[in-house]
Amino acid sequence: MKKSLASDNYSGIHPAILEAIAGANHGHVSSYGHDEYTHSAELLFKQHFGDHVEVFFVFLGTAANVLSLASALRPYEAVLCTELAHINTDECGAPEHIGGFKLLTVPTTDGKLNIEKARRYLQNVGFEHNVQPKLVSISQTTELGTVYSVQEIKAIADFAHSNGLYLHVDGARLSNAAAALNLPFREFTTELGVDVISFGGTKNGMMLGEAIIFNNTELAKGFKYLRKQSMQLASKMRFISAQFVAYLTNNHCIATAAHANQMAAYLRDRLAAFPQVTITQPVDANAVFAIFPKAINQALLDESFFYFWDEEKNEARWMTSWDTTKEDIDRFVDVLADALL
Amino acid sequence: MKKSLASDNYSGIHPAILEAIAGANHGHVSSYGHDEYTHSAELLFKQHFGDHVEVFFVFLGTAANVLSLASALRPYEAVLCTELAHINTDECGAPEHIGGFKLLTVPTTDGKLNIEKARRYLQNVGFEHNVQPKLVSISQTTELGTVYSVQEIKAIADFAHSNGLYLHVDGARLSNAAAALNLPFREFTTELGVDVISFGGTKNGMMLGEAIIFNNTELAKGFKYLRKQSMQLASKMRFISAQFVAYLTNNHCIATAAHANQMAAYLRDRLAAFPQVTITQPVDANAVFAIFPKAINQALLDESFFYFWDEEKNEARWMTSWDTTKEDIDRFVDVLADALL
Amino acid sequence: MKKSLASDNYSGIHPAILEAIAGANHGHVSSYGHDEYTHSAELLFKQHFGDHVEVFFVFLGTAANVLSLASALRPYEAVLCTELAHINTDECGAPEHIGGFKLLTVPTTDGKLNIEKARRYLQNVGFEHNVQPKLVSISQTTELGTVYSVQEIKAIADFAHSNGLYLHVDGARLSNAAAALNLPFREFTTELGVDVISFGGTKNGMMLGEAIIFNNTELAKGFKYLRKQSMQLASKMRFISAQFVAYLTNNHCIATAAHANQMAAYLRDRLAAFPQVTITQPVDANAVFAIFPKAINQALLDESFFYFWDEEKNEARWMTSWDTTKEDIDRFVDVLADALL
Amino acid sequence: MKKSLASDNYSGIHPAILEAIAGANHGHVSSYGHDEYTHSAELLFKQHFGDHVEVFFVFLGTAANVLSLASALRPYEAVLCTELAHINTDECGAPEHIGGFKLLTVPTTDGKLNIEKARRYLQNVGFEHNVQPKLVSISQTTELGTVYSVQEIKAIADFAHSNGLYLHVDGARLSNAAAALNLPFREFTTELGVDVISFGGTKNGMMLGEAIIFNNTELAKGFKYLRKQSMQLASKMRFISAQFVAYLTNNHCIATAAHANQMAAYLRDRLAAFPQVTITQPVDANAVFAIFPKAINQALLDESFFYFWDEEKNEARWMTSWDTTKEDIDRFVDVLADALL
Repeated sequence: MKKSLASDNYSGIHPAILEAIAGANHGHVSSYGHDEYTHSAELLFKQHFGDHVEVFFVFLGTAANVLSLASALRPYEAVLCTELAHINTDECGAPEHIGGFKLLTVPTTDGKLNIEKARRYLQNVGFEHNVQPKLVSISQTTELGTVYSVQEIKAIADFAHSNGLYLHVDGARLSNAAAALNLPFREFTTELGVDVISFGGTKNGMMLGEAIIFNNTELAKGFKYLRKQSMQLASKMRFISAQFVAYLTNNHCIATAAHANQMAAYLRDRLAAFPQVTITQPVDANAVFAIFPKAINQALLDESFFYFWDEEKNEARWMTSWDTTKEDIDRFVDVLADALL
Repeated sequence: MKKSLASDNYSGIHPAILEAIAGANHGHVSSYGHDEYTHSAELLFKQHFGDHVEVFFVFLGTAANVLSLASALRPYEAVLCTELAHINTDECGAPEHIGGFKLLTVPTTDGKLNIEKARRYLQNVGFEHNVQPKLVSISQTTELGTVYSVQEIKAIADFAHSNGLYLHVDGARLSNAAAALNLPFREFTTELGVDVISFGGTKNGMMLGEAIIFNNTELAKGFKYLRKQSMQLASKMRFISAQFVAYLTNNHCIATAAHANQMAAYLRDRLAAFPQVTITQPVDANAVFAIFPKAINQALLDESFFYFWDEEKNEARWMTSWDTTKEDIDRFVDVLADALL
Repeated sequence: MKKSLASDNYSGIHPAILEAIAGANHGHVSSYGHDEYTHSAELLFKQHFGDHVEVFFVFLGTAANVLSLASALRPYEAVLCTELAHINTDECGAPEHIGGFKLLTVPTTDGKLNIEKARRYLQNVGFEHNVQPKLVSISQTTELGTVYSVQEIKAIADFAHSNGLYLHVDGARLSNAAAALNLPFREFTTELGVDVISFGGTKNGMMLGEAIIFNNTELAKGFKYLRKQSMQLASKMRFISAQFVAYLTNNHCIATAAHANQMAAYLRDRLAAFPQVTITQPVDANAVFAIFPKAINQALLDESFFYFWDEEKNEARWMTSWDTTKEDIDRFVDVLADALL
Repeated sequence: MKKSLASDNYSGIHPAILEAIAGANHGHVSSYGHDEYTHSAELLFKQHFGDHVEVFFVFLGTAANVLSLASALRPYEAVLCTELAHINTDECGAPEHIGGFKLLTVPTTDGKLNIEKARRYLQNVGFEHNVQPKLVSISQTTELGTVYSVQEIKAIADFAHSNGLYLHVDGARLSNAAAALNLPFREFTTELGVDVISFGGTKNGMMLGEAIIFNNTELAKGFKYLRKQSMQLASKMRFISAQFVAYLTNNHCIATAAHANQMAAYLRDRLAAFPQVTITQPVDANAVFAIFPKAINQALLDESFFYFWDEEKNEARWMTSWDTTKEDIDRFVDVLADALL
């Protein structure tokens, strides 16, 4: 199919990652992560996030999120998140059915969690008829393509910890956030006290693979059993680990994410020329949300498939990826320009 | 590490499979299985198992098993299986915790399910204090390396269906069974009325990927949601599907399995020369179970790591793989011969 | 303690109900519901709701609700309800953890479900990333003390069924609704196609006991196992059943509920004399919601403990019961009058 | 129906317990256990089991067992129990589905847990493919009517604690054990280090109600939420608590249990005269297990309904109760004598 702006998971495997898979394909290796590739990947995560962190690899983002939360929660404890959080909208009930816990949702307009609105759920702490909030989950980058600043995350971490709550970051696109903030991962995660992180690989050039990073290593106790039981323990783990080695070496993942971000910024900048197109969210990372006349929908979709975020408003979400090129953007904008004539 | 007889998941990716991954790595493709590779793989499964089957891919065998069962069971319904069934011993409680159902286990000495012993659990049908048997699960090949004949599977299918039970086959090594029986898959599965099959790829040369094949397509209703919720829906699905295409084309998977089986038979045959070594199970497929003097344990383990099945008896399990060579076996037997001197 | 307006579960056992318990206390009786009292109670439910219904008794309302829903839902199916629904706010996550399903909530100002707002959740039917709406749950009476009319329930039933959804009624206070509507139960439930009903006894004079009534008897298949597994099968069932016999005979439950409703109406009427007190919801049944000056809180609470519904607005919820008297109300209003001086 | 030997839950409410229910039926009382009856009952439990224990009431024994275990276990942790344990055979999968954990069962001939056989499950501690044993559950009295001695329980407690396991006692008939041992409850439970106890009321004269007693109060943390979520929080709690007050005052429960035990011993003694009848288990408490000629089955069942424990052996279980009389036994034995002629 033609390259599209539908999702960063429409892209394939970055050549360097595929090479790493092939490079790990020699002879026999202990299964289930007892191998050198996994060891190397763990060391790289420690370099990026802090020597004390514990890291576990899983197959996909749904698991990274659900198991991060499950590591921290008893059955009657609940998660505070935005109403747009991926865990609330797009996991087909996995948090509730697999994790067994309730999500307490907070309205949002920019994808970020409003502390004052979240705080209302703390009223019922101690009352046995209500689930007990125990963890705050935020997405970095957010589902609306925005990026929390260090100060914003610090404020949420302080809110969480001063109320006895853990803080989880859904970092399916954490590399895009790092590129956007131009900061090492640790400066906007572990060093601010984030307890557990879902760290994404798939959307940024890996074939598959996500990591769960425990900054609060108390939560990692027994996690190896939870991962196995939750059907996330790869037998030929080396082929996930080897991908992460390539991903984290020489900031490869930051470079590819930065490129995707630049392509989104380039799209935003080019769209500025069209008064009929309204950008609806800050383009902090690799997503552009825009409203435009319905009349051009078909022309755009013919050029590049994408999803509508809000059909009533005719608001689209365009995602750029590690393999999006200026030429792709230019061609898309040209089609848009023609259609608007 | 040196090539070992520990497990068929110590081996890597078969070159033809790796090539298929690389071959699928071009441009953008719809995510979550809406792609041509997945479509082709599905067609191949239909060729092998019957035009009417429905197929879903998951990451690993634990999920193939648990979700096969979950597709068929209400919370109070139970599974009849042997006490050695992988679902009973090696899934860290996933059937109970993720599936939410109880396993009713039957003793076995050869890894096969004894119908008369299984039948005892039917006494309590209709009595609300007891879980209600609803599905029989057998492993083909079994956990002891034996292979059910067509007649044996037919008898179990008849027992199951005449008692209102479904039949599931844990086929993590179904290709080894097909090679052992020298029969097309369908002749010992779907054509006998097996309702749902876990079909393995990982242990026989894939990087990762297992399939759930619904012969009873009633059970497939809503399964796409169950897979997603159960954290088994790959976003870049093409890279699992492309592996299956290579795996199923020209009976590649049968060829590699047949090779592994031959290597096990070769090991068995060479061991016949050593009266101190007792083969404890029929070597139907790619596993050899043997008892030997403890004194040679260390020498053997130094040559090739493997697991003991029963430490009290000093009974080992040696698994061969698609990449095991006669030279590997010869070297191992040479070490054994030397150690026995 | 002094009689209070806190909740209708602060009241005790109606004398006729206690007498029924004592009356069932003779000799030996088969356990788990295989007894004459249970049979008689079931027949009475059939008289009230229709000959074809199937009825199961459980201990409490949480179970009546959760198991009603669990009878109808697969793990990835979801419930449409208001954000104020008891199942959403006051079951400590039982729907999510015990039932394993997600609630999709709709804003409400009067406690009733707005069909148009509920309809928005149907957009994602068929999309595997989202839970699939399968059941609408409404509360009759609502959590705000309002009562759905026959027309309103019919409209919701039509909405539900035309979209392939079941309809559940949380009838913890269904007798109060029957009294308010002055209709037999069946005319506003089973005859409108409600699929399954939680029928309350505890809040209206029973010691404990709730019923689940299946109008759609397909949903009752296997329910006896679900009840046992869900820890809701009473061994000495006769003592719950005997209560229901007394409760349903000669419309005892309607009479006690009508009395409670009248006491709420009397309280509302007496409060009309006080311009400082604003009644915030229609007093359809046995609840009065009111806003009043904070300065009188302590005086009121000293007379009769009650709960605040909305502390910010100083909005209280006053519940009347089968044993509330005009004297209780008069005394309460006198205290209020004094405090307002 | 005629008085029977089927189960101790065929009996009704002891008059003193019914009186206590009636005695608590005055005016309004805070719901959900915030009342004086509950407070009094808790104090009585502390007198019997130790000042530091924490006590929670639930509706039934299934819940007492499942929630005791759930308080102690993470999802991948497992229970060691006998294959005859009620939690394994008669809870319709509640431990697995509601609790979410696996039971690891040990064969038994006398109903008691064999430590050496249980120990085998400890081999796989630390291996992520296996559930991790974390709790030992024994039944006192056992399902075969036998009673553990103090020494036997101490040995099991030592085994458990020296291996990092908790010890739970299913005491559905703990009063019968206390009467049999002629010891205060604490001397064979809390003082031996039992961590958590299911304490039965229903089978020994209560209408309904069981208690969970935490000797290890770490396990009680958050339990109030777990109880509510698990659908076991009675709104009119006073009527369960008042029963427990009567039950525990002046060792009422010991007296009624002692009577039941004596009736079982009397039945055993009278049966000694019949060589055709073989008593198959020690009659330590209120159960008699016996094998007898099939030819007399119908005559016996006509006199008193009962259950067969093992139909193949024609082995029956006869349970005596607080209301069984010598005359009941004599009449039953007379029928047996006549039938054997």
